[in-house]
Amino acid sequence: MKKLISFLLLISLIFSVSVGQRKIINLPDLPGFVTLKCDFHLHTVFSDGNVWPTVRVSEAFRDGLDAIAITDHLEYTPKKDYIPVDHNAAWKIAQGTAKEFNIILVHGAEITRSMPPGHLNALFIEDANLLAVDSVWDVFEAVNKQGAFLQWNHPGWKSQQPDGIPRMYDIHYKLIRNKWLHGIEFFNGNEYYPLVMTFCRTHNLAVIGNSDNHGVISETYAAPATTHRPVTLVFAKERTHDSLKEAMFAGRTLAYFGDMLAGKEEYAKPFFWQCISIGKPYFGNDRNIYFEITNNSDIPFTLANGPAGAPATIAIAANSITRVVLSKKVTAPLIYDVKNVIIGENEVLKAELKY
Amino acid sequence: MKKLISFLLLISLIFSVSVGQRKIINLPDLPGFVTLKCDFHLHTVFSDGNVWPTVRVSEAFRDGLDAIAITDHLEYTPKKDYIPVDHNAAWKIAQGTAKEFNIILVHGAEITRSMPPGHLNALFIEDANLLAVDSVWDVFEAVNKQGAFLQWNHPGWKSQQPDGIPRMYDIHYKLIRNKWLHGIEFFNGNEYYPLVMTFCRTHNLAVIGNSDNHGVISETYAAPATTHRPVTLVFAKERTHDSLKEAMFAGRTLAYFGDMLAGKEEYAKPFFWQCISIGKPYFGNDRNIYFEITNNSDIPFTLANGPAGAPATIAIAANSITRVVLSKKVTAPLIYDVKNVIIGENEVLKAELKY
Amino acid sequence: MKKLISFLLLISLIFSVSVGQRKIINLPDLPGFVTLKCDFHLHTVFSDGNVWPTVRVSEAFRDGLDAIAITDHLEYTPKKDYIPVDHNAAWKIAQGTAKEFNIILVHGAEITRSMPPGHLNALFIEDANLLAVDSVWDVFEAVNKQGAFLQWNHPGWKSQQPDGIPRMYDIHYKLIRNKWLHGIEFFNGNEYYPLVMTFCRTHNLAVIGNSDNHGVISETYAAPATTHRPVTLVFAKERTHDSLKEAMFAGRTLAYFGDMLAGKEEYAKPFFWQCISIGKPYFGNDRNIYFEITNNSDIPFTLANGPAGAPATIAIAANSITRVVLSKKVTAPLIYDVKNVIIGENEVLKAELKY
Amino acid sequence: MKKLISFLLLISLIFSVSVGQRKIINLPDLPGFVTLKCDFHLHTVFSDGNVWPTVRVSEAFRDGLDAIAITDHLEYTPKKDYIPVDHNAAWKIAQGTAKEFNIILVHGAEITRSMPPGHLNALFIEDANLLAVDSVWDVFEAVNKQGAFLQWNHPGWKSQQPDGIPRMYDIHYKLIRNKWLHGIEFFNGNEYYPLVMTFCRTHNLAVIGNSDNHGVISETYAAPATTHRPVTLVFAKERTHDSLKEAMFAGRTLAYFGDMLAGKEEYAKPFFWQCISIGKPYFGNDRNIYFEITNNSDIPFTLANGPAGAPATIAIAANSITRVVLSKKVTAPLIYDVKNVIIGENEVLKAELKY
Repeated sequence: MKKLISFLLLISLIFSVSVGQRKIINLPDLPGFVTLKCDFHLHTVFSDGNVWPTVRVSEAFRDGLDAIAITDHLEYTPKKDYIPVDHNAAWKIAQGTAKEFNIILVHGAEITRSMPPGHLNALFIEDANLLAVDSVWDVFEAVNKQGAFLQWNHPGWKSQQPDGIPRMYDIHYKLIRNKWLHGIEFFNGNEYYPLVMTFCRTHNLAVIGNSDNHGVISETYAAPATTHRPVTLVFAKERTHDSLKEAMFAGRTLAYFGDMLAGKEEYAKPFFWQCISIGKPYFGNDRNIYFEITNNSDIPFTLANGPAGAPATIAIAANSITRVVLSKKVTAPLIYDVKNVIIGENEVLKAELKY
Repeated sequence: MKKLISFLLLISLIFSVSVGQRKIINLPDLPGFVTLKCDFHLHTVFSDGNVWPTVRVSEAFRDGLDAIAITDHLEYTPKKDYIPVDHNAAWKIAQGTAKEFNIILVHGAEITRSMPPGHLNALFIEDANLLAVDSVWDVFEAVNKQGAFLQWNHPGWKSQQPDGIPRMYDIHYKLIRNKWLHGIEFFNGNEYYPLVMTFCRTHNLAVIGNSDNHGVISETYAAPATTHRPVTLVFAKERTHDSLKEAMFAGRTLAYFGDMLAGKEEYAKPFFWQCISIGKPYFGNDRNIYFEITNNSDIPFTLANGPAGAPATIAIAANSITRVVLSKKVTAPLIYDVKNVIIGENEVLKAELKY
Repeated sequence: MKKLISFLLLISLIFSVSVGQRKIINLPDLPGFVTLKCDFHLHTVFSDGNVWPTVRVSEAFRDGLDAIAITDHLEYTPKKDYIPVDHNAAWKIAQGTAKEFNIILVHGAEITRSMPPGHLNALFIEDANLLAVDSVWDVFEAVNKQGAFLQWNHPGWKSQQPDGIPRMYDIHYKLIRNKWLHGIEFFNGNEYYPLVMTFCRTHNLAVIGNSDNHGVISETYAAPATTHRPVTLVFAKERTHDSLKEAMFAGRTLAYFGDMLAGKEEYAKPFFWQCISIGKPYFGNDRNIYFEITNNSDIPFTLANGPAGAPATIAIAANSITRVVLSKKVTAPLIYDVKNVIIGENEVLKAELKY
Repeated sequence: MKKLISFLLLISLIFSVSVGQRKIINLPDLPGFVTLKCDFHLHTVFSDGNVWPTVRVSEAFRDGLDAIAITDHLEYTPKKDYIPVDHNAAWKIAQGTAKEFNIILVHGAEITRSMPPGHLNALFIEDANLLAVDSVWDVFEAVNKQGAFLQWNHPGWKSQQPDGIPRMYDIHYKLIRNKWLHGIEFFNGNEYYPLVMTFCRTHNLAVIGNSDNHGVISETYAAPATTHRPVTLVFAKERTHDSLKEAMFAGRTLAYFGDMLAGKEEYAKPFFWQCISIGKPYFGNDRNIYFEITNNSDIPFTLANGPAGAPATIAIAANSITRVVLSKKVTAPLIYDVKNVIIGENEVLKAELKY
């Protein structure tokens, strides 16, 4: 007879001295694509962040991300008395670590102006120093010249939009007419902006979620409030820098934070049905039938507004099988609102349960 | 702008009033089989346990098990002054709940004798009261008559085997000759018995892991010590009572507890390689190549005794991707001991990493 | 050089094989009294509960309680086909364990009638079988004859009071006139009834909180929803059965669940100020002064409705020191509502912060 | 009737938007002194750390510390291509935040030489730039001139002492003769050095524990391995910078990490007895007496090597009451080794339990 505990502790001991594991975020792919988990908005000591650039890579590795962009402010560098300004420095410093940890490092910078146009990230750039010019339109031209992706950040940020409601100004319309604007943040940090769904649907822009973190990710996103930062799910043909870029320009994204998914129905619907499957009834009696809903993903889903007689609400926990007891009197189709899958400013995904 | 927190709380509120979720234990199937997670040794107030039989079903449901057996002692009923003895009562009481929760309930009983033969569970029986006879050999005959599976419990339990080392007595050999004994517990509660591997290999018996719980599962197996009870993984053709029975008699099992797997190599090896996959190198420099090991299961694996120059130990966390940095000087095949996959009394699985 | 980890594991190993610790719930005493933590409403297999009586004692020990009552239903015994009815059995069974674990075991029973009068617990009784009589008024007379404490349970339970609003019927007024009713549950399980505060203040009854648990405490009250069951805090002269009884009849109680305290101001106010102390300002500049609030208890407090210019809300975490930054312009006294200390149906405690 | 859950969530909501709480580390004072929790060894981006200096203050606040020193390397500044060297910069930057958060910020620097003399921290200095001189003895003279406290860091660090065993060289003896060396790290990061106890006892130096953190504290010290960083407990007359300095020079310290305490018996013994108290027996029968040990601190203690017939080991959990069942046959005094209170290289505290 042996006590298991000693064996367990031996293993723990070995584990504790090891490093180098990337958590698997359990989210499905879409047919023909791989789902890349990305954070395109991060700061370091090279603007007003509080960590060294390599920390952003190791955080991403630990968290199971595929890609990040470090996007220090071009126009706001409060630590410049101690750290001379070089807008490419963070990218240069982080590059080697990114390669060794298999993280796609997107070269980026944050254009930091008052509203309009507000703050925008240039992503997939070549040289951030070339973007440090006075006229904001000159910046946009330089961004475009580098073939970069332009993302409008936190459009409802109260410091710039006191009522919290995003508003498109002339310069935004002009960017869109030029096809120079490619995406908007729906999630930024702990905030989200429902109206962004309308902007993105109207102008065919990518729906994006980012952390905009300045401190330490694991301190900002701690249980029980939430266990992960806001990310953009990008449906890319391959897990490469160039495929990621192609997918972003094509707008194949969903934004994901907490238990919320937000994006266009064409991606949200198949993604939901890759997470969820419904079994055949396994038991029945005079009054009820019993069936199971399998959720093979990290996202819990909340179904609401079921038909009369059926459960009004079904909570589908993550990585779980949910048991449904359905009255035999229910004949209507089991169509539910998926409360946490946002496909419009005031619209959520609808799903029909066919058992 | 909205704060995400209020949305999250709303969802939590809805979730908190819902019930009915079965956790998915993330373990792979073997080709052609489904992996059923089973606990064949549980007590209730009908012998010396402290819970009502239906509690065993709801615990199994919550824990993601597929099958349980309630196996109250036939010969030890210390609560009989308050609860008149009926050896079938627990099974009768739990049956309806099992059906409603999609748990396969195996009818069982524990034959509780001094050593030899010690304690044995009769599983897949028809009537436990018929087993309550004086002569132990008469009991075995009755078990066999019911076509039941006979499992030897905790053969190294110190109360019956003071040195903790399992020993086969004449009666055990006689049971084996008759083909009346079909499996032995390698794990029981918090204990395990290495020698059971030899017994099972020599006599072709099923390797079994059970909790033998008398109290409350969630109190007995609480983090950080371990987060799940000992179970038997059974590789069945289908998720049905009869397929489970067929697989048990065929001996297609692994025992699983903590981070340990134990069983015959013919099941342990393919099971390991269903959990683990190895990627192509994603980066290299003058000195090293970098590749990743993906572990798509809840079981962490500990690789040890690697070849000279390679990492001596590789800790492969559960549900994670492990990054390996390998010196280009290493030319030997990357053969490791998988320390926590036990295939013999003193033998662990060997695995070669081919990247 | 030694790695700490090995030392830690050694200690963990030793710890893991030990038993017998009672958590300290960190709550202050009142001057001249000890604060006893009590649950006066628990079920076992002897009525419609699912655990053996001794489980209630070991749960109480683990949870840091001082006293419990097992209060199985007198008139509802759905397990009687398996367990012959004896209303004193649970108490008799649990007694020895209670002594060994230093838990005060109060002899009790639940009178289980339709409304009115609904369900009531008789506590500190001598013989439960004498209470199993037909006429409910005969029961009350028998309760009184045994010198017992009578507690009205969950008066707003929707199964008996469909609108969820407690209502006093003639029989309740008659009990009060006779001085035969001594307390009412404000908390029961996951519910609470604001109107109970009015009943208790008007008729000078004890405010009580109980779990009314039928299953397993650690499964019912699990993080993150809440980490402890509802309890009654009783301010007794000593930690003895008889002091507890005296304090209950004297009505020296607060009910405590989640982060909520409820009870009469004469106990709530000094209890709050035993938890909280306010430091001298430790820093100041042109605009602000800085001071700290120390909360030496397990209860977080939420201060709201502060005066103009001061923080509108101050969240005082449990077992923490809260830093307050106060504008020098604020001259009004710092009077706040303590949102989670309920002293009336629609009234919370007010507290003035004097630094 | 109201569901508690909604109230709880409301409170959580309020809490979640609040900041500014310092955890209380539950450790007792010694009579006449306050116990200050201190980390005297921390790095930032101004040498080879990865965080901005203000992060060290907010980490200390969150963790419940009273004092920290930022001690960047004088001779090792690998980020100097990006951050020009100024050895006082980190201290200047962190000062304002420290005042606002009531953290005592000790001005420090790490003298970083090969062995001998290895690495030493100068604490309570006035100007770090004056210490950046070539000859190490000149540095020590400058340290002494500033009235600073000199602490020898990680003397058994394998990079400088390949066998891991600390060794005192001539220069260390010379420092001691001059009374220029005042303390030695027993804990550094995840390591500890038993021999340091002998050095400190022989030469009357302070026993010190520090994190030497370069990254993020909450990532380095995460559950389950350990939940707090190594700290020095300093028994000061008051919670002020000058009292802290006086206490350090007087050597009134214990080092604390994980579950381990280390230091001189004159402090360890009264500190242990401030944590622990023993109650009168609460129950007895023919064979045993039952009593309780109350541990009102965050430190679990492990008692071992008890007298014959008594429990060989008693695990006293933190913030808990431990129940002891003692055979009436035991007549010897209950003297135990307190395994996790280190008072010498191979010596632990002895404690007699008098009930």
